[in-house]
Amino acid sequence: MIARYLAPLAGTGALGLGDDAASFSPPEDCDLVLTKDALVAGIHFFADDPPEAIAQKALRVNLSDLAAKGATPLVYLLGLGLPDGWTEDYLARFTRGLAADQADYGLTLLGGDTVRAPERLTLSVTAIGSVPHGCMVRRGGARVGDLVLVTGTIGDAALGLRLRLDPELAGRLRLLEADREHLLARYLLPQPRMVLAAAARQHASAGMDISDGLAGDFAKMAAVSGVAIEIEAARVPLSPAARAACLADPDLLAVALTGGDDYELALAAAPSSAAALVAAGEAVGVPVTIIGRVTAGQGLTVTGPDGMPLDLGPGSFSHF
Amino acid sequence: MIARYLAPLAGTGALGLGDDAASFSPPEDCDLVLTKDALVAGIHFFADDPPEAIAQKALRVNLSDLAAKGATPLVYLLGLGLPDGWTEDYLARFTRGLAADQADYGLTLLGGDTVRAPERLTLSVTAIGSVPHGCMVRRGGARVGDLVLVTGTIGDAALGLRLRLDPELAGRLRLLEADREHLLARYLLPQPRMVLAAAARQHASAGMDISDGLAGDFAKMAAVSGVAIEIEAARVPLSPAARAACLADPDLLAVALTGGDDYELALAAAPSSAAALVAAGEAVGVPVTIIGRVTAGQGLTVTGPDGMPLDLGPGSFSHF
Repeated sequence: MIARYLAPLAGTGALGLGDDAASFSPPEDCDLVLTKDALVAGIHFFADDPPEAIAQKALRVNLSDLAAKGATPLVYLLGLGLPDGWTEDYLARFTRGLAADQADYGLTLLGGDTVRAPERLTLSVTAIGSVPHGCMVRRGGARVGDLVLVTGTIGDAALGLRLRLDPELAGRLRLLEADREHLLARYLLPQPRMVLAAAARQHASAGMDISDGLAGDFAKMAAVSGVAIEIEAARVPLSPAARAACLADPDLLAVALTGGDDYELALAAAPSSAAALVAAGEAVGVPVTIIGRVTAGQGLTVTGPDGMPLDLGPGSFSHF
Repeated sequence: MIARYLAPLAGTGALGLGDDAASFSPPEDCDLVLTKDALVAGIHFFADDPPEAIAQKALRVNLSDLAAKGATPLVYLLGLGLPDGWTEDYLARFTRGLAADQADYGLTLLGGDTVRAPERLTLSVTAIGSVPHGCMVRRGGARVGDLVLVTGTIGDAALGLRLRLDPELAGRLRLLEADREHLLARYLLPQPRMVLAAAARQHASAGMDISDGLAGDFAKMAAVSGVAIEIEAARVPLSPAARAACLADPDLLAVALTGGDDYELALAAAPSSAAALVAAGEAVGVPVTIIGRVTAGQGLTVTGPDGMPLDLGPGSFSHF
């Protein structure tokens, strides 16, 4: 099984997955950046999602962490817990998803382990990237006077999850079919912003990826940096689909701002560097949008069009 | 929860586990050796094993891989899937086990992820060690004329598992209480042979750890190396407890030779190097025993006292 489905994904050093461990020669003058995200069926994805997409989501949530740290992906290890009743066809589709993403994102499988996880497909990916020595972008680097920015659009995945859980919601919101499909796709399959990793490394003073919701994750950046962050809700970039949903039901704005699974980059940068980040986004076709600023103090404030703080409820969605 | 129980385990580069990823500066002129073993409650350990021991087993089965590759442990990442109903007391005991092993084996926590795994405690450890560039001991290096060796004693853990599953077995075998406890302890908690990693790197032509049973794992070494391996059953080192069990029920010898969970090192070495390995074992108080030799051909043969091949049944125990 390993030889047939997983070994073809293995790169140099993985020894065809036929050894106890892999050998890996790190690039010179670099720091390695390591991240490990676990995903469990029924918690982080739906058990009946397409296996290609499940595999790609497991890889991409880790790649998104690397992008936020300014890192270039190199290799990954896969912990694969297969539920009772798995089939070869399922595994073939799962590994096809991995193969496609390996080609797209330029990394190879270095090792891993396959075990029985009777009730639920259980995945654990350790992804390894590199940055020039000392150059990893940190959460805690936001400084008073910085602007804060996000890539892409916010809230699509959280709204997509709502649509997935409530098949009649799209009808009640009178969403176009294309809008519904856009939001569902954004939940199913994150788009890690690797194309902006180098720009984040060059220009950002702080960075993280938005996995637990824009509000909660910027609150974390503020706390670790020892600063306050003010975000203007009206500046937060929404897709046409998310905008349509929030117009139909204004309560959904809080879902978009706190819901999570965006896998966009949350960045802070000095004003001139923020302009460079916006330009870098234009160059690669991924919008980078200034949404607020860093001030002295602590905590996160999200203000509405009237300049008054919005009440976003519990704030950050936690997977756990 | 992370701040209270896991952050105290974190070393340099882990950023207190408060970032998306860890930064790691690899030692110069070294290759990294990476291994990832997953463990699931009810499959790889008993759900009611002491949490300290479960944590240590998860770490040690990975350390055993590093030892077999001749590597020095550096850091590890932990994927922690907590079942519904977990308690802070359980987690405190689990992390105390990790802390003790980190001190004993000289490595620190670099990162990881904590998720919900409703039915079963599900663990995934990625361990990273280092060897001088190009010096990782491989499975495939056994050469015709080499001798084959094992560390420690074989079969204790497999017999311990039998005792665990059948509370009346110890009585039927008339084992001493001390023997019963020895075998149970050997199943519960592997002793990775880090003290012999450097000797393996210097003297072994091939190495792996014995996790799936002596017979099955030496069969893998033979296959990957493209050689035949002949083992004399009478030379395989058994503890007094295992010897007592096999004397009481001769069928248990096959269990000892194929049962798995030994976490001893399986090595091949040229005769003069084999002598150096035996001496290295004497120096650190872990027996290293020559049990057979490498010949031209393919496959593994285990011969009995009469020189005839033993029938060990299906051979290698597979966890999966």
